[in-house]
Amino acid sequence: MNKREKVTIYEVGPRDGLQYESQFFPTEQKIKLVDLLADAGLTRIEVTSFVHPKAVPALSDSAQVMAGIKKRPGVTYSVLVPNMKGCEGALASQADEFALFVSASQTHNQKNVAMSLEDSLKGFTEIARLALEAGRTLRGYVITAFGCPHEGAVPLDSVRRILDVYAELGVREASLGDTTGMANPPQVKDMVRRLLEAYPGMGLAAHFHDSRGLGLVNSYAAFEAGIRVFDSSIGGLGGCPFAKGASGNIPTEDTVNLFEEVGLDTGVDFDKLLKAGQLVKEVLDAELASNTSKSGRPNWQPSGEETNHC
Amino acid sequence: MNKREKVTIYEVGPRDGLQYESQFFPTEQKIKLVDLLADAGLTRIEVTSFVHPKAVPALSDSAQVMAGIKKRPGVTYSVLVPNMKGCEGALASQADEFALFVSASQTHNQKNVAMSLEDSLKGFTEIARLALEAGRTLRGYVITAFGCPHEGAVPLDSVRRILDVYAELGVREASLGDTTGMANPPQVKDMVRRLLEAYPGMGLAAHFHDSRGLGLVNSYAAFEAGIRVFDSSIGGLGGCPFAKGASGNIPTEDTVNLFEEVGLDTGVDFDKLLKAGQLVKEVLDAELASNTSKSGRPNWQPSGEETNHC
Repeated sequence: MNKREKVTIYEVGPRDGLQYESQFFPTEQKIKLVDLLADAGLTRIEVTSFVHPKAVPALSDSAQVMAGIKKRPGVTYSVLVPNMKGCEGALASQADEFALFVSASQTHNQKNVAMSLEDSLKGFTEIARLALEAGRTLRGYVITAFGCPHEGAVPLDSVRRILDVYAELGVREASLGDTTGMANPPQVKDMVRRLLEAYPGMGLAAHFHDSRGLGLVNSYAAFEAGIRVFDSSIGGLGGCPFAKGASGNIPTEDTVNLFEEVGLDTGVDFDKLLKAGQLVKEVLDAELASNTSKSGRPNWQPSGEETNHC
Repeated sequence: MNKREKVTIYEVGPRDGLQYESQFFPTEQKIKLVDLLADAGLTRIEVTSFVHPKAVPALSDSAQVMAGIKKRPGVTYSVLVPNMKGCEGALASQADEFALFVSASQTHNQKNVAMSLEDSLKGFTEIARLALEAGRTLRGYVITAFGCPHEGAVPLDSVRRILDVYAELGVREASLGDTTGMANPPQVKDMVRRLLEAYPGMGLAAHFHDSRGLGLVNSYAAFEAGIRVFDSSIGGLGGCPFAKGASGNIPTEDTVNLFEEVGLDTGVDFDKLLKAGQLVKEVLDAELASNTSKSGRPNWQPSGEETNHC
């Protein structure tokens, strides 16, 4: 039996997921969640954001969370760094990786961080220098890479302009974000193929949202086009607040199940992953958005079980 | 601008969807729902099932529903026909198409209809003869075609054996059902390609369930492999009862959005489709499982709207 090809799941639940939660996820539980995710075999975890507490109260405990987690060898712990102030907090923490972010759409960037796309990029220069000097690695998000709710279609050149800057700054991996779930499979395949060809030196990851139920469809399309790093969120945490019940990040459980089912190796222990989801479910006292947390993995062996018999 | 290629959505919500609902969906509202679905441009609708009222109380009003709908020219109205008794009811109705069903898995068929796969197939002979004599067309479901929760993997030959019988009976279209959501994209592509090649004369449809969040992933894989008819359910009606909140049929809104986004013509008016979903939401007083019913279609034109800004 040949060795299975690997795909990497980049867990964004504790940051991208929890930042939208109206109820405060207690610091001790955040720490427990991150440790459970690492214990499940996830090797890349975005733990928190060093953003201003007033901007994102849900993550106002970023320093305590980073101080509290048990760092596991072989796991890269990332934090979102929005500005120099956040950079100072991140440098004072044991974060391995700093994640920068900017929108490929001018309007979206203005609404998101109240500055122009160009000013966002300029601001990264000093942050990147300090991070690399301190031996941290850099990840860069390209928000609204596949479409913007305000500007509509986003030209590929707008994405390339950002990737060019990221490359100069020493960003080792850029994550292409479908922030409001506008992408579709052929669009994803075409764009990913062009970018993989244009940026052979830079790692590319895919970050799809499920706002229109296409998060996993687009993730699989990105896989077919050559991407091997996928952002997902435990329990599907991170619904977009604009509409109650609307899905946000793709659920890690379902993403792991998809790639394991097609024969790839995610390195994740599914049962341990469910434990992390169970913690989220208990703390938020809410139904998880992930399907496999309810249905489990498919059972390909004969069994007498009366499992999901419809 | 060239004419867009067509895909056909086969709406199963009123039957496959409502049969699992614990609360009775009032007859008048069922009739209204079917008429709204036809008004939205759906040309194939599975209206109800002529099953024993004790077996599926939710559809005990099948005769009244079939009598009450306003048949629209160009729309094919189907009904599920489980046995000869159901066939009599279906013949007495204005149903255009009779849908037969059998599991590719012996164990699943036994648990589902308390008879062997062979006895199910034998029972179809007389039903098919009467239906065709009466000028009705035939659809045939192959349940658990992609895997069985009891027997695990399902050999392709088990599916072919059923398609061979369906072909003999004059079934014009077989729908391959992933009844408990076990399928994955490469499996779907491989199986669909083999079956399309082996049965050039028979129409093939895909019927995916979202139990593990892969319903649309597998539908798109089936499309890439050549299938052009897709079963879906308004509002995602038809959750599998084994687990609260687990998804069942793929939502028609999200399926229409997917295929329209990739440039295909479903013939469905999305806004009118939302009206049908709204009725379901009001009658059941429950959140719909469809995502696009909350997010709407992507807006590819520049706009100042503050839509789903995350």
